[in-house]
Amino acid sequence: MSTIYVGCQLQYNVLTPTSFLLNISATMNFHQTVRNERIDVAPFQPLEQCQIGPLGNRLFRLVGQPGPLSISYQAEVDLRADEVDANNVCESKYSSLPPEVLIFLNPSRYCESDKLGRFAMEEFGWLLPGYSRVTAVCNWTFEHLTYTPGSTGPTTTACDVLLQRTGVCRDYAHVAISLCRAMGIPARYVAGYAVNLQPPDFHGFFEAFLDGRWFLFDATRLAPVGGFVRIGTGRDAADVAFATMIGSAESVEMHVWANDSNPQDARLSPDNVGSGLSSA
Amino acid sequence: MSTIYVGCQLQYNVLTPTSFLLNISATMNFHQTVRNERIDVAPFQPLEQCQIGPLGNRLFRLVGQPGPLSISYQAEVDLRADEVDANNVCESKYSSLPPEVLIFLNPSRYCESDKLGRFAMEEFGWLLPGYSRVTAVCNWTFEHLTYTPGSTGPTTTACDVLLQRTGVCRDYAHVAISLCRAMGIPARYVAGYAVNLQPPDFHGFFEAFLDGRWFLFDATRLAPVGGFVRIGTGRDAADVAFATMIGSAESVEMHVWANDSNPQDARLSPDNVGSGLSSA
Amino acid sequence: MSTIYVGCQLQYNVLTPTSFLLNISATMNFHQTVRNERIDVAPFQPLEQCQIGPLGNRLFRLVGQPGPLSISYQAEVDLRADEVDANNVCESKYSSLPPEVLIFLNPSRYCESDKLGRFAMEEFGWLLPGYSRVTAVCNWTFEHLTYTPGSTGPTTTACDVLLQRTGVCRDYAHVAISLCRAMGIPARYVAGYAVNLQPPDFHGFFEAFLDGRWFLFDATRLAPVGGFVRIGTGRDAADVAFATMIGSAESVEMHVWANDSNPQDARLSPDNVGSGLSSA
Amino acid sequence: MSTIYVGCQLQYNVLTPTSFLLNISATMNFHQTVRNERIDVAPFQPLEQCQIGPLGNRLFRLVGQPGPLSISYQAEVDLRADEVDANNVCESKYSSLPPEVLIFLNPSRYCESDKLGRFAMEEFGWLLPGYSRVTAVCNWTFEHLTYTPGSTGPTTTACDVLLQRTGVCRDYAHVAISLCRAMGIPARYVAGYAVNLQPPDFHGFFEAFLDGRWFLFDATRLAPVGGFVRIGTGRDAADVAFATMIGSAESVEMHVWANDSNPQDARLSPDNVGSGLSSA
Repeated sequence: MSTIYVGCQLQYNVLTPTSFLLNISATMNFHQTVRNERIDVAPFQPLEQCQIGPLGNRLFRLVGQPGPLSISYQAEVDLRADEVDANNVCESKYSSLPPEVLIFLNPSRYCESDKLGRFAMEEFGWLLPGYSRVTAVCNWTFEHLTYTPGSTGPTTTACDVLLQRTGVCRDYAHVAISLCRAMGIPARYVAGYAVNLQPPDFHGFFEAFLDGRWFLFDATRLAPVGGFVRIGTGRDAADVAFATMIGSAESVEMHVWANDSNPQDARLSPDNVGSGLSSA
Repeated sequence: MSTIYVGCQLQYNVLTPTSFLLNISATMNFHQTVRNERIDVAPFQPLEQCQIGPLGNRLFRLVGQPGPLSISYQAEVDLRADEVDANNVCESKYSSLPPEVLIFLNPSRYCESDKLGRFAMEEFGWLLPGYSRVTAVCNWTFEHLTYTPGSTGPTTTACDVLLQRTGVCRDYAHVAISLCRAMGIPARYVAGYAVNLQPPDFHGFFEAFLDGRWFLFDATRLAPVGGFVRIGTGRDAADVAFATMIGSAESVEMHVWANDSNPQDARLSPDNVGSGLSSA
Repeated sequence: MSTIYVGCQLQYNVLTPTSFLLNISATMNFHQTVRNERIDVAPFQPLEQCQIGPLGNRLFRLVGQPGPLSISYQAEVDLRADEVDANNVCESKYSSLPPEVLIFLNPSRYCESDKLGRFAMEEFGWLLPGYSRVTAVCNWTFEHLTYTPGSTGPTTTACDVLLQRTGVCRDYAHVAISLCRAMGIPARYVAGYAVNLQPPDFHGFFEAFLDGRWFLFDATRLAPVGGFVRIGTGRDAADVAFATMIGSAESVEMHVWANDSNPQDARLSPDNVGSGLSSA
Repeated sequence: MSTIYVGCQLQYNVLTPTSFLLNISATMNFHQTVRNERIDVAPFQPLEQCQIGPLGNRLFRLVGQPGPLSISYQAEVDLRADEVDANNVCESKYSSLPPEVLIFLNPSRYCESDKLGRFAMEEFGWLLPGYSRVTAVCNWTFEHLTYTPGSTGPTTTACDVLLQRTGVCRDYAHVAISLCRAMGIPARYVAGYAVNLQPPDFHGFFEAFLDGRWFLFDATRLAPVGGFVRIGTGRDAADVAFATMIGSAESVEMHVWANDSNPQDARLSPDNVGSGLSSA
């Protein structure tokens, strides 16, 4: 078991009263235990926690008033070590998939698996089913894409990326998810913090359902999977945007961090902190 | 309260052992009570009922063996009369939407609301918020599309349809859903049976979330909303296909019916019925 | 030099006065000499020959009146033998391309080469430039696509096909053209007749500009390139549709043939022939 | 007749030997007479003039060597006054269109008119044919789009813009061209200089073929059509990029101007000028 110190600080200039939906807090689930968590909003705003769905995503909702708005989050997360003997992980048969997993075979906004059946089967259909086949999908994605910040935007889909061959972490995940689903392997998007990600930022990776459970994968090879802290899980990036704003607000600055040693973080200084929910 | 008699009969020629996921049974929820339901499979196959998610979709899963396969379903459904005073139904504020409703603002595979913000606001942004604005979306959809069987396929999206201006029921629903979401109105797809639909078939329509609850709409004007029986609800048609097959099977024949008087239906004759689950 | 006997017979049911633009006659150019050509229209309609552009496409235009309309074409075409020593054919440098060739580097409706630069360079950029690299593009196209009549339609593009991995002759040509252009090799679409094509139909293939001239290629491997008779050349299939109709007419029947021996063709019997232009 | 003083100055930092194809010189045709033209390249490079196609586009090709590269162009252009009595300009019948005009009915890379037939006929099909119908297309385009620099990119098409409802001059032209073609009105893209365009830049507009000749239109309303100087004409923007580079070069600075009085332009000072072609 390891402990990861994660957090972020988001600065906005709010122009009109604006609803914020924040997807920045570590998920509480089997894989990870969240301790000493706090979220602070300055100036003070009432904060509503929204537990959404059975996947454990915890969102925070608030209404920001015109003027500067600072949101900061920090937590210590104990990760359960996850030892996988990849050789013994097979693919689940369709007829034995748990019902709640079936929707992760459906195509979604950024993962048009319904258009890629032949593509996926041609590239990976001849491989031995199992964990190693998802690894092959990750390797293919890594080898055929070039990681290029700015080359894609919020409406870019897996099909777009398969043609243009560039993208960022969310695009890598969308491509791999689409190819998995197209072969009958349930797959879903995970947003999270990642230790040693350079430059520090929110990260996007994915899970594939094999042998009765979900396994974490990352086609970007940008950071070790063992240092990933889940924030939210969904069908694709559309479900787990770190901040959704309804109204008018400009992002001024953003810091994200994830460390495997206590950073004695100075970024959340007391005078920066107005109020807020704290699970500490 | 009215009683609707619904059902379908699906004939397949199964070529290799094939998993079927069937989405043909009436939903059990606040709106409708299901009575005298039976599902029959010939030749006999064990049938697994999958309750999926909090939306009440009930799916059936079975593995068909090579040879002919007949699946038939029938039920009596009591519909709760739903009286709406449209004038008093307002739109919910984003900050007060129940958390479980938020995902129905996200774009989905066939409803690219993330690309249509300006389009929707230009066409409908100046209208009074509320039930009547969703009606305006339905009217616009009805008036700008031509109902043309065969003009769209399984990968056709709302954006495709907005350009080509033709489609079938699922396309009408996808367009209306996309425009609603693009304006901040949660919307979701509903598959169902529909009394007086000509020609008889499964139908697709949608729900919009207004004033704290979901309201049913249909932009096609093909059948009265008061005679709709819900089968399943999802983000778009990808979530509620009436039959998903993994394997190899050909559809040979399909009948679907929905009547508001007891049809003494002769189509499900006793010798046609092999076995199966029955809630009668 | 070989002689090919080509022709077609098109039957329409004209509903309202309809303009037809026909692209069915063999091109007269360096590669091929057209003899004993005749085009017949029944019932009689005045026929206008449109010589379009510097590429030698000859189109026929007529206005069909309501009722049955029969259009038939036949010609003998002498093909100049085209011996290529592929080993010695290099790619032309951009700075030395003849100006009139430059437009065939531009993307076109069905050949979105502007989106495929990285894709093309990744797959073929490391290969030796020259004739063999275009052959590699053809081989890749042949190996990654499955020839599937009905899998694509009139609006399908090269990018669509690269994802879905199925298509027909025009799609194979569009993919290969797009990949060539994306690497800086001018490429254009050619419609034509093809000896031994099964089933008999109009064919679509392409030319690439190498070493100062255009070379013929076909990624489908459906018929020998040496038996191709050019009808028209353009940026993609949009430029060389065999029949464009403005008005309302239904296609009733269509026959196309190309033989390397005189078929004593009985399909153009005298009583079938109303009038028309004849170059015989 | 009026005289317009046009020109541009392009600064590049060339990294590897790079072929440039420049589309910056005023077209010489019926509409405009070019006088006192000069193009200068510093440091000196041999310059090849490429006359492409029957449309009068004059391109310049050169190979830039590593280091700074400056290209400047200036000319005086006498515009023939073009008086149109819009009320008497009808649409040409398809059967009487000159053959060389027919290709401008075909869809092109950024103008997918083949997907917009129903859209165009629904919006404009009921209007009186003629000049005023093209004006209606321009008005619709102006009213439904918002001019937003940066909202589109080099691969954006008319269909993209019809959905997202934002764009720049080239997008406005692509939308209007597509809608015209979809109704059977030949239309083509024109790149040019425009007096009083703010901020000064190359401009994109279009021509529609009516009543036997081409008429100029601009859906952006950004500058008076009477002050447009044509540079090049093509199917869409793909054909008339002002600079195409094969190699590696960065654009450092760009100035474009068009004035209806002699600016005594100081930007082309003698020491800035290395060599070059001059038609003066």
